[in-house]
Amino acid sequence: MRRYTVAMNAPRVESIRFADDRLELLDQRRLPAEERWLPIGSAAEATAAIRDLVVRGAPAIGIVAAYACVLAARHRGDDRAAWLADLDELVAARPTAVNLRWAVERMRRVVETVPGAAVKDLRAEAVRLHREDRSANEAMAKHGAGRIEPGSTVLTHCNTGSLATGGTGTALGVIVRAWREDRLARVLACETRPWLQGLRLTAWELAREGIPAEVLVEGAAAGLMQRERVDWVITGADRVTANGDVANKVGTLMLAVLARRFGARMMVVAPLSTLDPGTPDGAGIEIEQREASEIWRAAGIEAPPPGVVAWNPVFDVTPAELVDCIVTERGVLEPPYDERIPALFDGA
Amino acid sequence: MRRYTVAMNAPRVESIRFADDRLELLDQRRLPAEERWLPIGSAAEATAAIRDLVVRGAPAIGIVAAYACVLAARHRGDDRAAWLADLDELVAARPTAVNLRWAVERMRRVVETVPGAAVKDLRAEAVRLHREDRSANEAMAKHGAGRIEPGSTVLTHCNTGSLATGGTGTALGVIVRAWREDRLARVLACETRPWLQGLRLTAWELAREGIPAEVLVEGAAAGLMQRERVDWVITGADRVTANGDVANKVGTLMLAVLARRFGARMMVVAPLSTLDPGTPDGAGIEIEQREASEIWRAAGIEAPPPGVVAWNPVFDVTPAELVDCIVTERGVLEPPYDERIPALFDGA
Repeated sequence: MRRYTVAMNAPRVESIRFADDRLELLDQRRLPAEERWLPIGSAAEATAAIRDLVVRGAPAIGIVAAYACVLAARHRGDDRAAWLADLDELVAARPTAVNLRWAVERMRRVVETVPGAAVKDLRAEAVRLHREDRSANEAMAKHGAGRIEPGSTVLTHCNTGSLATGGTGTALGVIVRAWREDRLARVLACETRPWLQGLRLTAWELAREGIPAEVLVEGAAAGLMQRERVDWVITGADRVTANGDVANKVGTLMLAVLARRFGARMMVVAPLSTLDPGTPDGAGIEIEQREASEIWRAAGIEAPPPGVVAWNPVFDVTPAELVDCIVTERGVLEPPYDERIPALFDGA
Repeated sequence: MRRYTVAMNAPRVESIRFADDRLELLDQRRLPAEERWLPIGSAAEATAAIRDLVVRGAPAIGIVAAYACVLAARHRGDDRAAWLADLDELVAARPTAVNLRWAVERMRRVVETVPGAAVKDLRAEAVRLHREDRSANEAMAKHGAGRIEPGSTVLTHCNTGSLATGGTGTALGVIVRAWREDRLARVLACETRPWLQGLRLTAWELAREGIPAEVLVEGAAAGLMQRERVDWVITGADRVTANGDVANKVGTLMLAVLARRFGARMMVVAPLSTLDPGTPDGAGIEIEQREASEIWRAAGIEAPPPGVVAWNPVFDVTPAELVDCIVTERGVLEPPYDERIPALFDGA
């Protein structure tokens, strides 16, 4: 068991560094006990880092994938087929988050559309993608915070801050900004089993921002909403389909159902890169299932009793009807999403 | 990290032994990694064991409290005031479960109603209370299993089996019997944060019964009910008030809300000793809050970051309107509970 301290007003959290064609990732599996940077020397190492959750959070995964395409191009030189195979492996690392596919597609397009595209063009595109995510975070924070009435209590899930994105975050970016604008009475974060991103990462980020946070187990969210007032449930997304269905960290659907029952509103914060107008609705989303050992580890047990298996999906799908608004860098969407989401991409 | 194996068809699990005025408890905090029996030499030690979760589960707590009254009587001899003070300390160990108060009241009544009552009268009463719980378990299992249609999928929460009672259990007793009667297609158990009673205890009991079980984190219950069929959510209770409101392990309210939304039914299994006709509804129930460290421990962290606190209630209250039936040893209750629960106690 470790104790740890957090320097208040510490510099902005970063989790992805890219300089001189060297990629480094803050190993999020070890936070908050330890801040260890992992050098990533190849696309294969980046694929493994995404799969093994060194980096997580849909936007952050997209940014790492873009840099991985640069590493792959340096390694493969003129062998276009090998480069494309590296890209396929990257996309397969995690099936649910759409940003991964989106970022790799964008890098592939550079090669397809710029005659004689070289590593420097890919590098410029990856850096641009990273910078755009940072700007999108700031725009979403502004739009989202503007919807939150002073004195509000907000509840968030998983980690959607600087560790999950290229900037200040999606849902957590909104919360941090709303806090600074003095709109929040209370900030609560679900611990987010099995990986405890809320407990390990969100609580750590909130502490660094000097925001007093309360953590709770997912099972306590219903009693919280029933007995105390929660105004907004605010989450990120791993994919938003054309009709407004939201794939996000497992537990989000529960919070959305409870919000509707107990009179809270549900805000989903997602950049355009997370919107997937090509998938009509949530039924078309593949839900990643992971190993049982992720669950058992918390009990200090390596393997379950014989005959016991785990139902361990990473994500769930919240139907659009439970989502009160979707905050993007272009503004706040309200229903009907099935008109407004496709409209954002018309003429794009 | 440990591995462990479970002998199939192992003898029935016991967690409370009382012989020759010696009380021993199976330390449930160490399960399933280790089966260690803790000798309890005094009422004060029993109070500590209840408070520190060596023993948990409302009926089991009641049985241990009854035996503790015997230990206290042996220790205090003729000092009635000291004995009553021991009983007060016992009752204060955990505020929510009504069985604790009920068992201590029953022991107190022996002394009040039997002229010249001695330790042997108390001992006989405690053994009788233990035996009655065992019979109640069997009757509830029969009544509850009878309600479950063949081919059903059931989802349970926390631990309500032999470890939580004096017999085969409440909710888990129903599930085990329904399995033996070949009524169940699938048995799922929520892990039950923060103490992981589902993962550590229920999975272990199901494995010993040879029942293939699936565990899930609480956050996954909504996606499970949305994407797969769940017919029954089956839980125990720590207290059922006169109107049918159910105080039970935190997370139960969430499951009840989700069951209603996704078309599952909610069965609460509780002996008469858990029914509290003297409390009109759930608003009158004190909800125990416990230490933040219970949550942080799972992340391998002893203390949270500065400024971070925990909202850590042990129980929540499910309103009667979400409960489809309440199974007692006298049969299955259906709404209107506010008539049928008080009627059970009329003329008692």
